[in-house]
Amino acid sequence: MNHLFFLREALKEAEKAFSLGEVPIGAVIVKDNQIISRAFNRKEFLQDPTAHAEILAIREAALKFNSWRLNDCILYTTVEPCVMCCGAIIQARLKTVVYGVPDKKFGGVESLYSILGDERNNHRPEVIKIEFPPAEELLKRFFKILRK
Amino acid sequence: MNHLFFLREALKEAEKAFSLGEVPIGAVIVKDNQIISRAFNRKEFLQDPTAHAEILAIREAALKFNSWRLNDCILYTTVEPCVMCCGAIIQARLKTVVYGVPDKKFGGVESLYSILGDERNNHRPEVIKIEFPPAEELLKRFFKILRK
Repeated sequence: MNHLFFLREALKEAEKAFSLGEVPIGAVIVKDNQIISRAFNRKEFLQDPTAHAEILAIREAALKFNSWRLNDCILYTTVEPCVMCCGAIIQARLKTVVYGVPDKKFGGVESLYSILGDERNNHRPEVIKIEFPPAEELLKRFFKILRK
Repeated sequence: MNHLFFLREALKEAEKAFSLGEVPIGAVIVKDNQIISRAFNRKEFLQDPTAHAEILAIREAALKFNSWRLNDCILYTTVEPCVMCCGAIIQARLKTVVYGVPDKKFGGVESLYSILGDERNNHRPEVIKIEFPPAEELLKRFFKILRK
């Protein structure tokens, strides 16, 4: 499994978000080495507080399989998922989560909480963190423009 | 503000979920004493792992206002919101959350975590817990039937 290949696919999604003025975070969901769904953060465009890349990718994958159980799927996301998205990952029973950049302010995997590793949950996905500088650079570029 | 009145409206939603074989949880969102949105858990019907009552009510209210910011709104939910829904509550900047039954397994307000009161978050809603036996009885009735 080439995690970096799929993280780069998630980055392509993040770049779409960037070009539309959204916080540039992207996600893809993969099963058997095939991309099932891909999404980028669309919170502003949709004016939907839940429209994070991960949530949109999860919902699309569930729609495709006509099943809320994504047991055999891997979620790739450019940035550490927030508390809401960590909750959704558990709800969807995702097998594995691969992410790049930690999110000190909102992250629910290692920053604010360790939700995905919490033994009290009825499901614990495997978590893989991969250094992925291009996703971090994209975020920095975005917030630099935003603050101008 | 008559919290119990609106909790009873949320219970009506939970009863709809019950009659459709969904875990019976309901929610309404209220602004200026008016119900803006109402929803019940539709996870099985929609096969959407994110389709909890709270998420659906939040998304519908945001759609109505064409704004992801629900600053002046109160969420009433029959049961303590899970981690995912707590995250969504923060994302949506809801002013107040009123709930009835604690959820020892999945609750993110007082049971597993205290997400809504966490000072590290950029938004902290007011939290009001109200004893609400009919919501608990409905849940018990549901799980009793399920286990038969």
